[in-house]
Amino acid sequence: MADRKHIILDAAISVIARKGLGGLRVEEVAERAGVAVSLLYYHFDNRRGLVRATLEHANERAAQTIKDLSADQRTGAELIITMLLAELEDPAQARELSVLWSEVMASAFFDPSLRDQLAEASDRWAALVADAVWRGQEDGSIGALTAPADLAALLTSMVDGLSARWLAGLITRERARELLAMSVMSMLGIHHATVSRP
Amino acid sequence: MADRKHIILDAAISVIARKGLGGLRVEEVAERAGVAVSLLYYHFDNRRGLVRATLEHANERAAQTIKDLSADQRTGAELIITMLLAELEDPAQARELSVLWSEVMASAFFDPSLRDQLAEASDRWAALVADAVWRGQEDGSIGALTAPADLAALLTSMVDGLSARWLAGLITRERARELLAMSVMSMLGIHHATVSRP
Repeated sequence: MADRKHIILDAAISVIARKGLGGLRVEEVAERAGVAVSLLYYHFDNRRGLVRATLEHANERAAQTIKDLSADQRTGAELIITMLLAELEDPAQARELSVLWSEVMASAFFDPSLRDQLAEASDRWAALVADAVWRGQEDGSIGALTAPADLAALLTSMVDGLSARWLAGLITRERARELLAMSVMSMLGIHHATVSRP
Repeated sequence: MADRKHIILDAAISVIARKGLGGLRVEEVAERAGVAVSLLYYHFDNRRGLVRATLEHANERAAQTIKDLSADQRTGAELIITMLLAELEDPAQARELSVLWSEVMASAFFDPSLRDQLAEASDRWAALVADAVWRGQEDGSIGALTAPADLAALLTSMVDGLSARWLAGLITRERARELLAMSVMSMLGIHHATVSRP
């Protein structure tokens, strides 16, 4: 039954990424997941419950991606570059999550009920980046002495800004990645010798 | 008649800032502006025409604000700090424009018809920032040698990211301003002696 729930939640992520939160209809999620609408109501009570579970699932999926990345990297600097660039990936699954969070961020202004989960996802993501900054300051791959929490807030805001521009069609994904690499190098005091620019 | 049009467009900005683009109803704009609905259709043909004229008007209003600021500043560095911080202002009028552009940016992914006007506003804004960077590199107030266009893209993306977080309730406006000042100093190579931190 856990698998069936995951399939439904992955379908909900896809629907939100294609139509926005306002366009999310329970019927369409059920159809996409290949299950009966009644099963969705059984698991999630109502549309609001489905949205809440979907954001939780998206948060887990994003955290898992970062955990998978963390295992392979050597220096803190390399880990940060990899983590941040992963937010500007094109494969459908990564892109879906970018669209989802961008949509939730914009919607939270109009719908305060989204804010707790957005804050949770944002804090978790910032904490992982701050850990990597700390690691890079320890291993010498990051020259900047600014507090890890401040650098993490700056870097994640920059990623959000670039991601929003990419998704809105203002800049290409390649340009967004180039700008992100520039800002990371500059803000962290990383030299080209340490990390090759993607 | 030009004044009446401005009143309608200011009312449309307020409605979008309170309810989002999806929540914009011609009737509500007319009521807020204190005019007959038929007058809106007379001037703007339909809802889409009203949205288009509103974004144009918002773009003009933002450009005028920056022009007013530009006259008073001395160095390029001071001008940039002032221009960027103006995006994180609380007075209703400034905040409305922040919400509007944030909403248009997020909506452009789902509604490509918004992209041309978004690109126009974004290019205009980036060009003004790039001009100020060039000015600061000339007058010595900006130490960074990065191309003005790249720095302008980075700084405006950072403002967007911080503004989105502020509007979504993730960080306070004071924290957003503090982070913005930090990133501007770091990316432009500005020293504290040159510009006092706000």
